[in-house]
Amino acid sequence: MIQCAIFAIGEELLEGSVTDTNSSYIAKRLTSEGLFPRRVALLPDEKECISSSVETAMRNYPLVITAGGLGPTFDDLTTEAIAQACGVKTALYEEAEKHITERLTRLNVKINKNHLRQAFLPEGSVLFPNPHGTAYGFGAEAYNSIVISLPGVPYEMYAIFNESVIPFLKNRFTLKAPFKVDLRFGDIPESDVDSVIRNMSIPEGIRCIINVSMGEVVVKIRDDGLSGGERFAEKVKKALEYHYLGKDDESPAVIAVKLLKEHGFTLSVAESCTGGLLGGVITSVPGVSELFTGGIISYKNKVKTEQLRISEDTVRRYGAVSEECAVAMAKGVKILLHTDCSIAVTGIAGPDGGTPDKPTGTVYIAVITGESVVCKRFLFSGDRSSVRDRTVKSALVMFAKTLKNL
Amino acid sequence: MIQCAIFAIGEELLEGSVTDTNSSYIAKRLTSEGLFPRRVALLPDEKECISSSVETAMRNYPLVITAGGLGPTFDDLTTEAIAQACGVKTALYEEAEKHITERLTRLNVKINKNHLRQAFLPEGSVLFPNPHGTAYGFGAEAYNSIVISLPGVPYEMYAIFNESVIPFLKNRFTLKAPFKVDLRFGDIPESDVDSVIRNMSIPEGIRCIINVSMGEVVVKIRDDGLSGGERFAEKVKKALEYHYLGKDDESPAVIAVKLLKEHGFTLSVAESCTGGLLGGVITSVPGVSELFTGGIISYKNKVKTEQLRISEDTVRRYGAVSEECAVAMAKGVKILLHTDCSIAVTGIAGPDGGTPDKPTGTVYIAVITGESVVCKRFLFSGDRSSVRDRTVKSALVMFAKTLKNL
Repeated sequence: MIQCAIFAIGEELLEGSVTDTNSSYIAKRLTSEGLFPRRVALLPDEKECISSSVETAMRNYPLVITAGGLGPTFDDLTTEAIAQACGVKTALYEEAEKHITERLTRLNVKINKNHLRQAFLPEGSVLFPNPHGTAYGFGAEAYNSIVISLPGVPYEMYAIFNESVIPFLKNRFTLKAPFKVDLRFGDIPESDVDSVIRNMSIPEGIRCIINVSMGEVVVKIRDDGLSGGERFAEKVKKALEYHYLGKDDESPAVIAVKLLKEHGFTLSVAESCTGGLLGGVITSVPGVSELFTGGIISYKNKVKTEQLRISEDTVRRYGAVSEECAVAMAKGVKILLHTDCSIAVTGIAGPDGGTPDKPTGTVYIAVITGESVVCKRFLFSGDRSSVRDRTVKSALVMFAKTLKNL
Repeated sequence: MIQCAIFAIGEELLEGSVTDTNSSYIAKRLTSEGLFPRRVALLPDEKECISSSVETAMRNYPLVITAGGLGPTFDDLTTEAIAQACGVKTALYEEAEKHITERLTRLNVKINKNHLRQAFLPEGSVLFPNPHGTAYGFGAEAYNSIVISLPGVPYEMYAIFNESVIPFLKNRFTLKAPFKVDLRFGDIPESDVDSVIRNMSIPEGIRCIINVSMGEVVVKIRDDGLSGGERFAEKVKKALEYHYLGKDDESPAVIAVKLLKEHGFTLSVAESCTGGLLGGVITSVPGVSELFTGGIISYKNKVKTEQLRISEDTVRRYGAVSEECAVAMAKGVKILLHTDCSIAVTGIAGPDGGTPDKPTGTVYIAVITGESVVCKRFLFSGDRSSVRDRTVKSALVMFAKTLKNL
């Protein structure tokens, strides 16, 4: 079991004005290859702090990865700090210099000496080219360990990581991917899942974690050795079969798209309180173009009556947030865009708009598949953003469960 | 300057299957009150590791905050670890027990002894009620420090933090909010902003960080003492006035909505490659209901021609990803939904669909305000998700700049 450390670098991370997403990306990729992050921390843009944290981590782990602080501006100090941690100087790398010059020339940017700071890297480094930016990644050795330093701009980091770092790691370490599965369940409370698993008793050597996220319960099963993780996962899945949605990265959107494809159905959406988020999440799945036709964002009632052809009487009598309106929205968009299925959501996301009858967090979700119409009322806790996110996720879970049981 | 430590707890965070957003939330709120996080790390669900990390942090900082691991399941070990770190036992708290019983009864959940584990907290704790869940937050003292432990479900944590923890901290510490501003600029390269600021020379005692995010350049200016931070911020803002968009939490969406309100305009959107995300981001701003009418998600061309009334000839001759189509989409939705302004986006988010002429990442954004029509072509690097996010942000920056300079 090869352990490692990850540092995300940037003052903006420590003060919370930017959320670090790089270390979770790196951790996830490493874990799936059989490298285990045991130390993950955020570090400020301070040379001494970066240098000493990296040095300590290198003395404890054979692999340390940092993200951030490789930019051209005065507050980017990671390269110098790492050189210091490894006890070497920085030197000009012609390959990096050429890359920077060519890239900036192509973008019509006038090159100054700050740009070229990015071509100075610790002596003896392995270079990792950056296809999307000027900052090269690099790996520097010391203390029988290697520190790999990557830029903090997420899509630049992802590309370098996948194109260069992963092949490098596979070459350097003898990696064995562990057994690892996330089982996703919908429409069931966390405590019920917990009881079922407790009654099974978890075999020695298997780690099992239960997470709840927006109405989904995710059971994570890990087996670093040969403790029967796969068999145990099958057992858990079987015990909770009725609520099983999918596994691993199969988010409700991915599962819904997969089921749509299997059925050869097309889908449209009508959205009120989510304002387009549901369509946004569905279209985040690549390859959805043949299945997802489009939608109507009927934020104001006028759009509901004029575009979705809901009678003014329905809106007046039952209100825009009602079962009747949700079903009419789903019917309206299905007819308008000529699709096989449709999903409609209408609710009160807050902070204002709640009433004693329909408090903030009240949401109606209607799902139509062919002739079948289902509508459910939800009451979500939390702020505007949580209510909207949970609405989207619940709509997709509802839709996926409907398709699965057709 | 009161320093503190933050730990986000959960195996799923270390292995990267869930991204930690709690510590950045906590860090941001603490920073704005004058408490400075200097140690932020993720910890596994291991009692010894949590206990020793918390104890070390308590010996170094007067305040330690943890999030996560207070749930009812077998892998939730934070409470016991913290009791151990503080050298006390856990005890049953009747207030917490009553809260759990009442809440679960209301939700028709059958109570078992695992649920009641959440009522056992370190002896001598201060309690922080949870309005949205069963897990109470608590504060435990040792080593002249206090550790405050909160549940990991974000909206539960936010509510406890704002309703109970902030007042508690204000009472316990003498807090002085530092000067702190984020200046947001659009349509300008990072290196230009850097050059301007370098030429000014940053006064001693002021920290200045430059971040780039999706086409926005954010200059963060911090002054913990009395070093003229406010004056310096004014100078930076003035030097880059033309590109200035807004400050602090004024995301492009917030700025766009603010400017819409000032002009008394209504807005609609037509979205192709973003599939609803743009509308989703606009409606994330509370109070937008009077200004945002709705939109058409014209993912398939049929929706562009049938709903937005774009001539089939335009689509055939120029393609769905073209200036002509983007402008026609913006005109179409503006007329259809009777609004003063409209934004339309069409592009190739990838991974497939690119051509030599229009590679993946090619996006057209059209903005109409009254009679004025602007359309720009962009070429975004990165994966599908980055291209879509940058499209949304760039559309909002474009729209905000247009309204600002009307």
